[in-house]
Amino acid sequence: MAPSREVRIGLLGMGTVGSGVAEILTNRAPDLEREIGLPVRLCRVLVRNPERRRGFALDQQLLTTNPDDVLDDPNINMVVEVMGGEEPAGTYIRRAMKAGKQVVTANKELVSKQGPSLLALAAERNVDFHYEASVGGGIPLIAPFKQDLAANRIGRVRAIINGTTNYILTRMTEDGVEFADALTEAQRLGYAEADPANDVEGTDAAYKLAILATLAFHTFVQPSQIYTEGITRLAARDFRYARDLGYTIKLLAMASDSDGQVEARVHPVLLNAHALLARVDGVYNAVQVEGDLVGKVMFTGRGAGAMPTASAVIADVIDIAQDLQREMGFITPVIHYDQAKRIQPMDEVRTRFYLRLEVADRPGVLAQITRVLGEEDISIASIIQKEVNDAARLAEIVIVTHTAREGALQRAIARLKRLDSVNDVGSTIRIEEDD
Amino acid sequence: MAPSREVRIGLLGMGTVGSGVAEILTNRAPDLEREIGLPVRLCRVLVRNPERRRGFALDQQLLTTNPDDVLDDPNINMVVEVMGGEEPAGTYIRRAMKAGKQVVTANKELVSKQGPSLLALAAERNVDFHYEASVGGGIPLIAPFKQDLAANRIGRVRAIINGTTNYILTRMTEDGVEFADALTEAQRLGYAEADPANDVEGTDAAYKLAILATLAFHTFVQPSQIYTEGITRLAARDFRYARDLGYTIKLLAMASDSDGQVEARVHPVLLNAHALLARVDGVYNAVQVEGDLVGKVMFTGRGAGAMPTASAVIADVIDIAQDLQREMGFITPVIHYDQAKRIQPMDEVRTRFYLRLEVADRPGVLAQITRVLGEEDISIASIIQKEVNDAARLAEIVIVTHTAREGALQRAIARLKRLDSVNDVGSTIRIEEDD
Repeated sequence: MAPSREVRIGLLGMGTVGSGVAEILTNRAPDLEREIGLPVRLCRVLVRNPERRRGFALDQQLLTTNPDDVLDDPNINMVVEVMGGEEPAGTYIRRAMKAGKQVVTANKELVSKQGPSLLALAAERNVDFHYEASVGGGIPLIAPFKQDLAANRIGRVRAIINGTTNYILTRMTEDGVEFADALTEAQRLGYAEADPANDVEGTDAAYKLAILATLAFHTFVQPSQIYTEGITRLAARDFRYARDLGYTIKLLAMASDSDGQVEARVHPVLLNAHALLARVDGVYNAVQVEGDLVGKVMFTGRGAGAMPTASAVIADVIDIAQDLQREMGFITPVIHYDQAKRIQPMDEVRTRFYLRLEVADRPGVLAQITRVLGEEDISIASIIQKEVNDAARLAEIVIVTHTAREGALQRAIARLKRLDSVNDVGSTIRIEEDD
Repeated sequence: MAPSREVRIGLLGMGTVGSGVAEILTNRAPDLEREIGLPVRLCRVLVRNPERRRGFALDQQLLTTNPDDVLDDPNINMVVEVMGGEEPAGTYIRRAMKAGKQVVTANKELVSKQGPSLLALAAERNVDFHYEASVGGGIPLIAPFKQDLAANRIGRVRAIINGTTNYILTRMTEDGVEFADALTEAQRLGYAEADPANDVEGTDAAYKLAILATLAFHTFVQPSQIYTEGITRLAARDFRYARDLGYTIKLLAMASDSDGQVEARVHPVLLNAHALLARVDGVYNAVQVEGDLVGKVMFTGRGAGAMPTASAVIADVIDIAQDLQREMGFITPVIHYDQAKRIQPMDEVRTRFYLRLEVADRPGVLAQITRVLGEEDISIASIIQKEVNDAARLAEIVIVTHTAREGALQRAIARLKRLDSVNDVGSTIRIEEDD
């Protein structure tokens, strides 16, 4: 594509983030032109329903319901995709690239599932493809990974990367409420959607972790390869026990690379209450990265919301546009993948565990439980036993184990559930060491 | 300069950071070539004493004591300056730029004092000039400011940006020791230099704040314009009072921009013990940035040390080298400065204050003190009075004020010192609100 003396943007989608992007492109045009050295103009916006009222009022002439009006317009040299979802977003982005247009996206599902093939197509078509807004809202993450930490071998990434679940867990920690009540409050405040499954089941966090792990470890980590467990089964009592034991409960997205083997998982953890990550509360996100040269660095900020996410989208627009201004030929740096890396199955992962069991309050029960654990090679670090219900003769036991294999623990739990004396295995929460 | 098929580096300086850079360039050459797409070779190293033993053993042939061997060598296309200090580093960098060489530096003093003129020269000579390593060691800061937050108007920067002082303050907080003892321990562990003045007086933090504020607010903030106060006068008892009041003592570097007026200062503060910045301990650094779109984002990590700093230097090398690889013409983006911005004099700054006074233990003293404060328009939020020395009939009073002007407080302190009943004004520490 010939160098252009204007950045002409086609916007795909005009929801929360799209409205923020349109607002910044319109209201801050002089700032952007000064930053880039070229005028920036929003030329066309693909919407589903042109009649809908939006957060930002835009010239109705710009709206269209026909994607061809954006993708086939030779005047548009940059496409910003904020529709979300794999399709039709993926098809539109491919069409844009094939037409020689630069592409910016905020689409975590698409990038996590198809990132490498999209980057390859971008390189083939000599266009840029940026996706800073796909992870961590306005927190700078993708660019630091690609540039600032480029000299490092990344050993580990640990992140609180979903604001909805972190808000709910903070409420459960601070107010002692049950999950359902905290969720209702989050929905009332607009921090959780009417259908919260994507957030509370950990799916959203897994998409984002897949993107970060793929960048960090130079191997394609797909969301389907990430063990994912949400927060819906946590009970208020787990938060009280956690506090007594010196822990805070967080939903962590964790990935590590040791000796060419990658481990990636999303699940609730007990985290030492003094750890920096344990102190990231409410809708805030945090990503901690361990590089062999820099040691641990952590990035914190609001991980969602229209304006933080739009800020990241615009940062990508500026970055690509500055290259346009310099009239350089774009070459999206090909990301080198090491195909030989193995994704470790969850069964092989080793952690410490917190178990909460409801058991019959009679002699010999503890002996039965500890025998099962011992036979599965799981050793016990500490036990708390409390009488819960005198009438029903039920007691509650909380066991904290030493490091054990996930597979062994799952077998032990299945066996414990079959014991007459075990009424219920209430919770199993892995413990994340703060080393 | 014609595009080059190899990145040939001349290194100026081979101290702690220089040794780290040389080690990475040598041992990680294949990784760097894969990342950049061109081979990277360390061609020449300027040292003061070729005989000195260093952390990393280098081919003696590469060493020289003559700067011309680096600066006049037409084969060298990138100069990495890690000597530190304004001169001769500044002269060498200017010579390198004029010879068409790309420049990377870790020199906070030089960049803080001469950054704008060096960037202007780089633009004029069509070369790149990067300085990520000058602030915050390996923590990505400069690139996020320039790129990721480019769409934001930055309102405020607050930073713990000197590891030596943060280590000393953490020891004083946790162990209750006096400054001199904490400093001795820091020196023993290699966290403080034999002559610690640059760190403990706040000078180093002021250099770094000048660099960040200049980037954030698009106006040249010079170190000499930054009110700078170190940690040497803090007493162990201040840390005990601070804890009782719910605060932690930190050395903060703070800058803000409101209505075109910039405020920039480095001094100890009382910070709410629950604030995220209050929890950054030991040699860790943290920089919190408030943008109008992203809200608050924070970057944390080790702010010093050979390898973290070398990691940032190498990130800059990669960034420039990738442009070399793309055979693009370099244009260091000219940073736009708003000349009209005013740097607010310290006298006009408004904060709350903590005052510790040693006073005569007799009736009427408190009335005298509160009258002086009242006459200077300083209102009191709380008072703690403790008997300290019965024999000498001296008492200690700690006063926390509401928001007041710095100028008024300084006048009040001068008047308090003249009162017969006031033996000593032990400490004056400003309070930083966590809003």
